[in-house]
Amino acid sequence: MIAQHYKDMLGAKSVIREISEWSTARGKEIGYENVFDYSLGNPSVPCPPQFTEACLDLLEHTDPVALHGYTPTLTLPEVRAQVAESLNRRFGMDYTAGHIFMTSGAAGALAHAIRCVGVSGQNIVTFAPFFPEYKPYVEGAGLTLRVAPPRVEDFQINFDALDGLVDENTAAVLINSPNNPSGVAYSAETLTRLADYLTATGKKYGHHIFLISDEPYREIAFGGVEVPYPAKFYADTLTCYSFSKSLSVPGERIGYVAVNPHAEDADYIVPMCGQISRGTGHNCPSGLFQWAVGRCIDLTSDLQVYETNMNLIYDELKKLGFTVSKPDGTFYIFPKALEEDANAFCRKAMAYDLALVPGDTFGCPGYFRMAYCIGTEKVRRSFAALEKFVHEVYGVEV
Amino acid sequence: MIAQHYKDMLGAKSVIREISEWSTARGKEIGYENVFDYSLGNPSVPCPPQFTEACLDLLEHTDPVALHGYTPTLTLPEVRAQVAESLNRRFGMDYTAGHIFMTSGAAGALAHAIRCVGVSGQNIVTFAPFFPEYKPYVEGAGLTLRVAPPRVEDFQINFDALDGLVDENTAAVLINSPNNPSGVAYSAETLTRLADYLTATGKKYGHHIFLISDEPYREIAFGGVEVPYPAKFYADTLTCYSFSKSLSVPGERIGYVAVNPHAEDADYIVPMCGQISRGTGHNCPSGLFQWAVGRCIDLTSDLQVYETNMNLIYDELKKLGFTVSKPDGTFYIFPKALEEDANAFCRKAMAYDLALVPGDTFGCPGYFRMAYCIGTEKVRRSFAALEKFVHEVYGVEV
Repeated sequence: MIAQHYKDMLGAKSVIREISEWSTARGKEIGYENVFDYSLGNPSVPCPPQFTEACLDLLEHTDPVALHGYTPTLTLPEVRAQVAESLNRRFGMDYTAGHIFMTSGAAGALAHAIRCVGVSGQNIVTFAPFFPEYKPYVEGAGLTLRVAPPRVEDFQINFDALDGLVDENTAAVLINSPNNPSGVAYSAETLTRLADYLTATGKKYGHHIFLISDEPYREIAFGGVEVPYPAKFYADTLTCYSFSKSLSVPGERIGYVAVNPHAEDADYIVPMCGQISRGTGHNCPSGLFQWAVGRCIDLTSDLQVYETNMNLIYDELKKLGFTVSKPDGTFYIFPKALEEDANAFCRKAMAYDLALVPGDTFGCPGYFRMAYCIGTEKVRRSFAALEKFVHEVYGVEV
Repeated sequence: MIAQHYKDMLGAKSVIREISEWSTARGKEIGYENVFDYSLGNPSVPCPPQFTEACLDLLEHTDPVALHGYTPTLTLPEVRAQVAESLNRRFGMDYTAGHIFMTSGAAGALAHAIRCVGVSGQNIVTFAPFFPEYKPYVEGAGLTLRVAPPRVEDFQINFDALDGLVDENTAAVLINSPNNPSGVAYSAETLTRLADYLTATGKKYGHHIFLISDEPYREIAFGGVEVPYPAKFYADTLTCYSFSKSLSVPGERIGYVAVNPHAEDADYIVPMCGQISRGTGHNCPSGLFQWAVGRCIDLTSDLQVYETNMNLIYDELKKLGFTVSKPDGTFYIFPKALEEDANAFCRKAMAYDLALVPGDTFGCPGYFRMAYCIGTEKVRRSFAALEKFVHEVYGVEV
């Protein structure tokens, strides 16, 4: 008999995916180059050539039995050491290889981090706007996701809402900075206040509350600014990373969990990840790609296009009178819609071949997401459509 | 606060891994070439050159954005179609791409299959001797593993024990043919009887009982014989496969679940796998390796060495008077120890630099496993040590 609760999930389609499918279908009618598809967060730039070269070199010059053999349960020690060294150098941390566990992307990292610090029946608190996959990630581990409402003026943390959500059953707080969908990075001030809150609240309830920091967009930071590293602010932090966006290799499923060495029981957490892996069928990411990211540890794709696109779109949106926070990074921007119902706003935009995603799916109604991981030429061309849309539908003077 | 039940698991070490670690340590003292290490099931032959060529060609001649991009939630349709076509041609099945879901090895396949057909509180029945990782796989999904005692005369299924184990809460029966550790493949007669039993028992309890067939060793069959394909015998079968052993690429984590098109709710099961993936953080195996196995779908490594080794070891064991079933495939053999306590037997063998794994860990006390995925020259050299061991310790005339 098949498992009814998974069968029941089949009806609910992802809004993002639906809009993306509409874009593809519309592209077949008018040519995809004429659809201004801001729906999907798929990297649009190639991986750095050094990544391809590393893969080729490994395939050509390594004994295939060793190269493709099982990696250790806790993943490759050499690569874990490379990750630790890079994080230490960049962020002034003191990780060792023993604090790093290589995973199948950020999804794998989050699946392990959640199970390390939470048990069935507990809850995890996150902040709107938030990546909608957090819900299945948290619920898949038997916990409940609680969502704090957004602080729309700047998309920093809404601390006023926290006290009503964190309780004695809170295992962790889950953050994503720079944020999908807002593009905003949490400031040092926000992270300091969050650390103080978690320390005080953990004391109140008699147990450490962990911080799970999801950072796939860490390397896509604008204005030459490095975004604050959350683990630097709070000892009980598990940092979840993916190379998907920084190296443009999302399909190869490679990332890691980094355990702050000053966290509670820090030395047990990576070995626990090895145990968790057995029960979920994770059992290590690809060996080739573990080696390859180790060789490219401080490299990124040429990410400049995202900043170019962001500046163009931000200026255009401001010109048209949109309320919008300027992104600190990622390839997303999250303006306020021109009517209260962002679903209606995005539906109407389709008539102008604009694919925008309503904020409801990120827990933030009234806003919409544009994923600008597309060519700059298309971004420029999209402005005529955007202007026509807001002028004809909302009477905006352009 | 870290999750105590995972922390508690850290004490329990795998017996196989302990013996393997002893071999490595002993190798540092006397040279690893002098340790007769029959402990680990790690393929010893390289992947076929076509696999390396496929990877190189994909890396050199595919747009990296497409090659390394996200694969669809239900994995690559082209590769799923190649798997279906190959299975149909070889086993007379009628799979379509819609019945295939690519996974991170057999571990990923089993994690999905178990969650597709079982819910928390149910049980899954398997047969000793069995791969010890089945326990965390099943328990990780919230089910209980029940183990039927072995039928030691030929390592086929012990049907007498089944009725006491299968009940109204049995979600599935889990088999592994050819079997790790016995090397024995289930005969057509065994599979027919099992199918009849499951059909009748499913009717009795008013729900379909699924068969989960774990087949990573399917391609390692001896004497030119193809082992019977379990899904051919029973409609409600989920076949779990890994390319780890057939292509010698265990570290790249690539396999699949194949859903018999005649199974209950067959068309829902692959979409359900997509949902299950979200909760476990599985989210597709590597895109490069999905494409690469698609190009090598009917190839294997040169597996001849395993049969050569098996024949040498089987003849030697028979010569020394061991009770042993001749393997039909795999790279394992599972003889009866020369004393009741196989742990003691294996411990004493260490003094002769022989690394053997006691059968207790496979639910079959009194037997021991030899993994002969090592060079034939070492197999030959090991016989002097084996003969000295059984002569000096057990008085066997050699």
